[in-house]
Amino acid sequence: MSKIAFIGLGNMGGPMAVNLVKSNHDVTGFDLSKEAMLSFERAGGKTATTAIEACDGADVVVTMLPSGKHVAGLITAEFIDNLKPGTLIIESSTIDPTTARSVALLAEAHDCLMVDAPVSGGTVGAQNATLTFIVGGADQALERARPYLNCMGKNIFHAGPSGAGQMTKICNNLLLSILMIGTSEALNLGVANGLDPKVLSEIMQKSSGRNWALEIYNPYPGVMDGTPASREYVGGFAVDLMAKDLGLAIEAGLQTHTTTPLGSTAFDLYKMWSEAGSGRLDFSSIIRFLNQKELQLS
Amino acid sequence: MSKIAFIGLGNMGGPMAVNLVKSNHDVTGFDLSKEAMLSFERAGGKTATTAIEACDGADVVVTMLPSGKHVAGLITAEFIDNLKPGTLIIESSTIDPTTARSVALLAEAHDCLMVDAPVSGGTVGAQNATLTFIVGGADQALERARPYLNCMGKNIFHAGPSGAGQMTKICNNLLLSILMIGTSEALNLGVANGLDPKVLSEIMQKSSGRNWALEIYNPYPGVMDGTPASREYVGGFAVDLMAKDLGLAIEAGLQTHTTTPLGSTAFDLYKMWSEAGSGRLDFSSIIRFLNQKELQLS
Amino acid sequence: MSKIAFIGLGNMGGPMAVNLVKSNHDVTGFDLSKEAMLSFERAGGKTATTAIEACDGADVVVTMLPSGKHVAGLITAEFIDNLKPGTLIIESSTIDPTTARSVALLAEAHDCLMVDAPVSGGTVGAQNATLTFIVGGADQALERARPYLNCMGKNIFHAGPSGAGQMTKICNNLLLSILMIGTSEALNLGVANGLDPKVLSEIMQKSSGRNWALEIYNPYPGVMDGTPASREYVGGFAVDLMAKDLGLAIEAGLQTHTTTPLGSTAFDLYKMWSEAGSGRLDFSSIIRFLNQKELQLS
Amino acid sequence: MSKIAFIGLGNMGGPMAVNLVKSNHDVTGFDLSKEAMLSFERAGGKTATTAIEACDGADVVVTMLPSGKHVAGLITAEFIDNLKPGTLIIESSTIDPTTARSVALLAEAHDCLMVDAPVSGGTVGAQNATLTFIVGGADQALERARPYLNCMGKNIFHAGPSGAGQMTKICNNLLLSILMIGTSEALNLGVANGLDPKVLSEIMQKSSGRNWALEIYNPYPGVMDGTPASREYVGGFAVDLMAKDLGLAIEAGLQTHTTTPLGSTAFDLYKMWSEAGSGRLDFSSIIRFLNQKELQLS
Repeated sequence: MSKIAFIGLGNMGGPMAVNLVKSNHDVTGFDLSKEAMLSFERAGGKTATTAIEACDGADVVVTMLPSGKHVAGLITAEFIDNLKPGTLIIESSTIDPTTARSVALLAEAHDCLMVDAPVSGGTVGAQNATLTFIVGGADQALERARPYLNCMGKNIFHAGPSGAGQMTKICNNLLLSILMIGTSEALNLGVANGLDPKVLSEIMQKSSGRNWALEIYNPYPGVMDGTPASREYVGGFAVDLMAKDLGLAIEAGLQTHTTTPLGSTAFDLYKMWSEAGSGRLDFSSIIRFLNQKELQLS
Repeated sequence: MSKIAFIGLGNMGGPMAVNLVKSNHDVTGFDLSKEAMLSFERAGGKTATTAIEACDGADVVVTMLPSGKHVAGLITAEFIDNLKPGTLIIESSTIDPTTARSVALLAEAHDCLMVDAPVSGGTVGAQNATLTFIVGGADQALERARPYLNCMGKNIFHAGPSGAGQMTKICNNLLLSILMIGTSEALNLGVANGLDPKVLSEIMQKSSGRNWALEIYNPYPGVMDGTPASREYVGGFAVDLMAKDLGLAIEAGLQTHTTTPLGSTAFDLYKMWSEAGSGRLDFSSIIRFLNQKELQLS
Repeated sequence: MSKIAFIGLGNMGGPMAVNLVKSNHDVTGFDLSKEAMLSFERAGGKTATTAIEACDGADVVVTMLPSGKHVAGLITAEFIDNLKPGTLIIESSTIDPTTARSVALLAEAHDCLMVDAPVSGGTVGAQNATLTFIVGGADQALERARPYLNCMGKNIFHAGPSGAGQMTKICNNLLLSILMIGTSEALNLGVANGLDPKVLSEIMQKSSGRNWALEIYNPYPGVMDGTPASREYVGGFAVDLMAKDLGLAIEAGLQTHTTTPLGSTAFDLYKMWSEAGSGRLDFSSIIRFLNQKELQLS
Repeated sequence: MSKIAFIGLGNMGGPMAVNLVKSNHDVTGFDLSKEAMLSFERAGGKTATTAIEACDGADVVVTMLPSGKHVAGLITAEFIDNLKPGTLIIESSTIDPTTARSVALLAEAHDCLMVDAPVSGGTVGAQNATLTFIVGGADQALERARPYLNCMGKNIFHAGPSGAGQMTKICNNLLLSILMIGTSEALNLGVANGLDPKVLSEIMQKSSGRNWALEIYNPYPGVMDGTPASREYVGGFAVDLMAKDLGLAIEAGLQTHTTTPLGSTAFDLYKMWSEAGSGRLDFSSIIRFLNQKELQLS
């Protein structure tokens, strides 16, 4: 049993913290929202009145915050000085790799360890402890983090040194957005030219068009049960979150002069779809933005 | 044993016709190239001096031609009138669905049957009889074609009525081009930001970035053996052929007012890469067009 | 005074035909719409019950039809055989250059002359006889057409041989769509970063960003009086018409393997904006599609 | 006569400083390059061994540096504390508006005045004192700067408060890049379809395609004398500089969630063209990147 501080008890962080409690760790949580704190207490967790108080005496600090600004604002030199030497920080927010690296350097300079460990799997994965963690950091830090990550998730990938977890997640989601839009374009084009979307999906999935979207997340309504497309794109991974991750990709591209023409177009499409009022729909709803005449919501 | 006419004995048609000969069919070939004819004779085939002569008394006519213009120029009303009633035409060129449909209608009006049966699998698949056929046409026509297709390939998909084979191939290749460019962008972005392309590829392939390119055709040099990327993009599926197929996709989109923004960008990139002198490289070489500083040929 | 047949009396053709009447020509009109015919009669024109009847004895035939299909369907060999030898055809529809050229060849083969003479200037220009004609055809044909064009418009450009009028209009409108979107992007970006759209417009118009949109058709609401932007994008040149012209540009690009990346994106944006329900708004409304949060209609 | 410090004596800064000398100001220059310093001395200027020394007793400090990092690195609180109270800083580098604003705030906090005053007009404009300045800052600061700007340039635009000069230049150059590519696409498309580029240019310039590129900077070789296109794109405004400015535009868009689809595509095209080895050619050479088959350099 370890003493764990968990900062950020939102839709993702809340159930993750609860899963640490269920694994018999001594978890003290903190969140700016009173409601999130109450909810965590009801699930058996302790709470503190400040983030620093939550970290008092902790062996491990887990953070799950909305953006890089929040992470850099929390994990300052002063904050780390209040931690026990040797404390492990598991930073699970999705943020830019530059911030992840600079915060990790700060932690190391103050005798702490940090891994960046962004997740995929959504709120369902957070609740069921089936998240995937993509981890950046030293082997040693990852090995210390592994037992805690195993309480909250199912798969752990080691992507490389500090920041590599964030960068890998950004690359994956860049590719995912392109797969989803590309799959949508192919299905729209086929249907407009008389093909059956199920038959077309099956053939492409057995051919060189094969990809994750065709396999388990088909964006065309009526083709696959249990997907957001089968429930009018409610739930799932929000358009706004995809737009956020694509923003991080474009920024990483700007800093390294990397050309990502399909990624730029994907970013524009997701931003425009969000502005059109669809920011909370699942990201596979982009097929409707491309085909507004046919794919009206009922 | 059937009497088969085979029109078009090029890099693809030649070995396909030979595979029909090896299955003990009586095959008469025709090609405008003397060399292609001689090569077919050496492999045990018969030849004729005109396409019409090759079709004399044939039960089955197979065509493998460069473009829709060639197909429409060959399979005219007059040509079909010279066939026996009930002749089966297997049209295996990759062409626009409109031409495929109009030629099939013409065939039916003259008491013949036709399937459009474009292939994937390249020259290696043609030689080893491991092609994939994506077939458009009536069930009955496909059932008649099936034994012959089985002599030349391994997988047969029934995509729908006349033209659906072509349309499905076009949709698949549209998606394939987008997967390949998207995978290239993600790998370039990751490497530019310090990631190892092998590790990144493995993690994305186990995550929602999973797709055919990561699985068996990784475009990044040094990541996967046996791919075009491992031999400086020689061989494989040419940039020019991908540009041709994307042109068919854009045309189908124009006719049906379908919006394919990533497809349009992919088409532009493949055209520009071809014009830059890389038309005969494998289509995965597009990663170099996006990253000319780092990925120079040796 | 010449005897003129005018086929197509719609929003553009109607007032153009009336302007020929006002110049004391003997004009017989035809349109499939009874209402259009009545309206032309009320304005002093004659009408006929078929297009061929309208052309009986005509010295000049003017056509103003919705698309290339309509033009090719009207101006057949049979149609031309019914004309007097030496009849001049002024084909003012906006259509693809290929159809324009083939119809012109047909006319010449039957001893008639043809110019393609697409217009710009909209319904206001049609009513006020201030249209611009962009003419393709032989010098001699243009010189015969000139007096009639002068009755309907103010500017006449000679773009080259048959089809060049259409092709030039297509190129101009391709560029126009790009100018309009580019101007919109620059204004949106400036305003989002705190600039005043009027000041920004003035400085760019005096700098290297200068273009027609900034000069007389500013898309940002409140910057310039008398523009569609000042009346919620009602009237002007419709999104759907721009999408149609861009479709002709993309088609011409496909046929000649020309790469137009900004044009492709512009086409996609105009199609999506049309599908979102804005097809009848002025094309400068595209600024709202790019900036839906800020630029709501009141 | 004022005492002026001029930091940054490169291709642009050098001749600008000389023009201040010619107007009888007492100018002390500084540059990290010895050669630049010698050249300025030969032209009648004084030099100092450090930037701070150059500023000793100065009434006005002019800076002309490569990027925002250099500007922020020079104009620190410490640097400003060494200036006389009331010193005017004219910051003429092209940098991001955020840095421009924060440096201006710093200056004001230490009782100095600053304007951001990026230029257009290139090295020729710098030499001939015909530059255009786009100024951000308070009216009072601009009025103090005006006499000095008049020594170096011809046009002065007041874009708004601090940072507005930079932001306006970024917006203008975003639009300029789009105009140039759009004009190139229209010309390429027309020529590929048989039009004469001169005639097409003239007609579009008199029509709604009118823009600065058609007016004085036609990218098509052979159409207009005295342009970079007429001398194989040597000289002019470099591809690399346009890519830099587009990077600033994309960054400003990222920070404000502004969608610039044509701008994103323009940025990608300029980066790729630069990576292909054309970074030092004039930016109108992008027409060749789009049309490599036809527009080879001789």
